Amino acid sequence: MVRDAAATRARILDAAVTEFAEHGLAGARVDRIAAHAKANKQLLYAHFGGKEALFDAAIEASLGALLDAVPFDASDLPAYAVALHDFVVAHPDLLRLARWHALERPGVLVSLPAAATSTLAKLDALAAAQRDGRVDDVLPPEQLLALVVTIAQGGSVDELPAELVTDAHLAARRDAIAHAVRRLTTPG
Amino acid sequence: MVRDAAATRARILDAAVTEFAEHGLAGARVDRIAAHAKANKQLLYAHFGGKEALFDAAIEASLGALLDAVPFDASDLPAYAVALHDFVVAHPDLLRLARWHALERPGVLVSLPAAATSTLAKLDALAAAQRDGRVDDVLPPEQLLALVVTIAQGGSVDELPAELVTDAHLAARRDAIAHAVRRLTTPG
Repeated sequence: MVRDAAATRARILDAAVTEFAEHGLAGARVDRIAAHAKANKQLLYAHFGGKEALFDAAIEASLGALLDAVPFDASDLPAYAVALHDFVVAHPDLLRLARWHALERPGVLVSLPAAATSTLAKLDALAAAQRDGRVDDVLPPEQLLALVVTIAQGGSVDELPAELVTDAHLAARRDAIAHAVRRLTTPG
Repeated sequence: MVRDAAATRARILDAAVTEFAEHGLAGARVDRIAAHAKANKQLLYAHFGGKEALFDAAIEASLGALLDAVPFDASDLPAYAVALHDFVVAHPDLLRLARWHALERPGVLVSLPAAATSTLAKLDALAAAQRDGRVDDVLPPEQLLALVVTIAQGGSVDELPAELVTDAHLAARRDAIAHAVRRLTTPG
């Protein structure tokens, strides 16, 4: 029974990620999520509360998948940024979810437990790397982290017409990201 | 009469920017735009065609305002990036419009005339600055431009709860942006 409940919860979250990434909070239909997850709506509400809570849970699940797949490495920030870029390119739902969330739940993401906990751990690791000279210490850790994450996600492929997103384009972005992060973080 | 038509067009665009920034393409109501602009709906359709065309015109108008207010300066890219940051912070509608547009009209923005023309001019200016040694030339101009614009917009204040967006926070962002762009673009 416990395993069934966990499996149902996972199916609901998968279906929610797909539905919210496509339609956002306002446009999403809880009926469709329940149908795709083969769960009934009462059960869905029992698990997650309302539509907004399910939206938050969907972005937390996506973010959790990213955090598992792309561990933070304060000793090799260029490689971390490139890995983050590659994950985002391979998972376009994540960026769409993040955009809808910024528009429809502004200011909420940073306070969700998965995001907040992970950010604090990254800041601690960055501060330690700055103290022992592995990372340049001109900028405070929170500014440096924001820049590295921003650079990794910049020039997002979903802003381009699909025909422009070639392997050569992605390789050039990867090189540019690694170069920019190296310049920014190498002790000067 | 010509001046009236131009004034009506400007009022419609202003109202469209506000409506689309708040609700996006799917959620926006053309009735509300017409009412706020004190224009009738037939006239609005005669000026702009359909709702999608009006959405594109709204983001082009916003982008045009940004391009007028923040001229590109290949000889002082840190100052350009900080000015771009300040404009975006002062005009939260622009970032919301851009996010909705990326979600609801993916791949279209880069091909809109105002965006495409401005990007080509920036790339020419950057390439010239790289040739005569004012700007580092390790990266190709299109990658460098994407990074500078990304860094300027990163850590956007609308991702934070309002109480965290203090003057001290904005001053620290400005310093970090200028520092990152300097590191990236100073000939090495």
